[in-house]
Amino acid sequence: MRRPHVYAVQVEFGDCDPAGIVFYPNFLRWIDAAGRALFITAGVPPWRETERTSGIIGTPLVNVQGRFVQPASYGDQLTIESTISEWRNRSFVMRHRVCRGGDLVAEFEEVRVFACRRPGEPLRIEAVDVPPEFRELCEPN
Amino acid sequence: MRRPHVYAVQVEFGDCDPAGIVFYPNFLRWIDAAGRALFITAGVPPWRETERTSGIIGTPLVNVQGRFVQPASYGDQLTIESTISEWRNRSFVMRHRVCRGGDLVAEFEEVRVFACRRPGEPLRIEAVDVPPEFRELCEPN
Amino acid sequence: MRRPHVYAVQVEFGDCDPAGIVFYPNFLRWIDAAGRALFITAGVPPWRETERTSGIIGTPLVNVQGRFVQPASYGDQLTIESTISEWRNRSFVMRHRVCRGGDLVAEFEEVRVFACRRPGEPLRIEAVDVPPEFRELCEPN
Amino acid sequence: MRRPHVYAVQVEFGDCDPAGIVFYPNFLRWIDAAGRALFITAGVPPWRETERTSGIIGTPLVNVQGRFVQPASYGDQLTIESTISEWRNRSFVMRHRVCRGGDLVAEFEEVRVFACRRPGEPLRIEAVDVPPEFRELCEPN
Repeated sequence: MRRPHVYAVQVEFGDCDPAGIVFYPNFLRWIDAAGRALFITAGVPPWRETERTSGIIGTPLVNVQGRFVQPASYGDQLTIESTISEWRNRSFVMRHRVCRGGDLVAEFEEVRVFACRRPGEPLRIEAVDVPPEFRELCEPN
Repeated sequence: MRRPHVYAVQVEFGDCDPAGIVFYPNFLRWIDAAGRALFITAGVPPWRETERTSGIIGTPLVNVQGRFVQPASYGDQLTIESTISEWRNRSFVMRHRVCRGGDLVAEFEEVRVFACRRPGEPLRIEAVDVPPEFRELCEPN
Repeated sequence: MRRPHVYAVQVEFGDCDPAGIVFYPNFLRWIDAAGRALFITAGVPPWRETERTSGIIGTPLVNVQGRFVQPASYGDQLTIESTISEWRNRSFVMRHRVCRGGDLVAEFEEVRVFACRRPGEPLRIEAVDVPPEFRELCEPN
Repeated sequence: MRRPHVYAVQVEFGDCDPAGIVFYPNFLRWIDAAGRALFITAGVPPWRETERTSGIIGTPLVNVQGRFVQPASYGDQLTIESTISEWRNRSFVMRHRVCRGGDLVAEFEEVRVFACRRPGEPLRIEAVDVPPEFRELCEPN
């Protein structure tokens, strides 16, 4: 079992709304970055390269669940611990715990797929099988 | 039963990522705006007024679930149909259907609370009972 | 002389910062959308089409100047009047006036170029001559 | 003369547009954060504290000029060097150089003011004299 990937976030003034707390879509922006960082750290190439080599444009989101436990505000240093908790044939599940020091701020579970453009229809994308070599990189035994 | 509130979104180039499709945190930004528009249309005052009159700073998110059915891209005209599907003592459930013409693009369910700042701790907020007058405005007779 | 293109913006809660006013990078996001809308209204195809037909990926920004006259906040209805004030061989100047009713909120001047990817280097882009047919579409006589 | 404050930015996939390069309003988001970091590093309290103690809600932007030299994309590590190049009675000038390694990516000059809310009009803000203690913190002799 691999240890969680850790991604650091410094909350900025502009990330917060008139209530003075993080405008919550920013959490989704951060966990997207945290998930991509997990792949890069594991050795998966950037999407601009996979698009050229295998047609894969990234890992679009299919489902997301989020739970917001405590507000965060500018000046906070957050850490996001990300793990791939399940691999399926055509999708995978990623979990993210957003913490401030020892306190849980929010947690998320995402279902994502690897996707390619549909030939001749650049705006349509379709899920493909999880590439075994990427799965291998993410969970070495 | 009230009809859904409808909020229109024009997807912009800058809302899309290198895959050419909407960077998904923007959907959360749009449903946040759609939900606030529902309240304003129903007659609930802006949060800057409720903060002065009753201390309520807004409706922070407690839980969110999202399902992404089809990608969207710049030039798309989306509509978001929002309803409050359930009122509880201290929270409420809002549903959003994001459509392009007759096609479902994504759907979301949010649990939110009305919140005030905790006295003397401006960064701490706490849920309060759903104000009956706001509930009344949102679901007349 | 063509009349300005008008683009409407509804300022949202999430566009504002803890001071309660628009977090200013959002103005840049809006004028980017306003400028693209000017081209689309004039008949210039979307960038995803020009990329296929002529290699043009859009109109990257070279210079921007902005002047902020009055703050704006959520609930404000803004209009952005955009004009192309000057055409040069390899660039053009766009002006944007952001107003709330009759009041000027901010104004911007941008220098932009039409750009293509450099062959074999997908991350490098280079300016090309202003396509005469696009200029023609934008300023019919 | 103080050395520039250095702020690090990791460019994320979601910061980039369909052309694969940074959507330029994000540069403005980053320099806003870089400027605030300069103040915090110098010892100026966060705006939530100055609002309580002196009424100052932050340093709204009056003018900005930006020059974009090279595109950036996800995976790039940028550094922003920020300096306050001029102090005036009621405003100050901040410069930001955004670099990737030794290469200049973009540079900006901002004129900002320290501002308070106008009494009784929470949405109106007005410039105040530069607080001498904050200037002192930023340029010790």
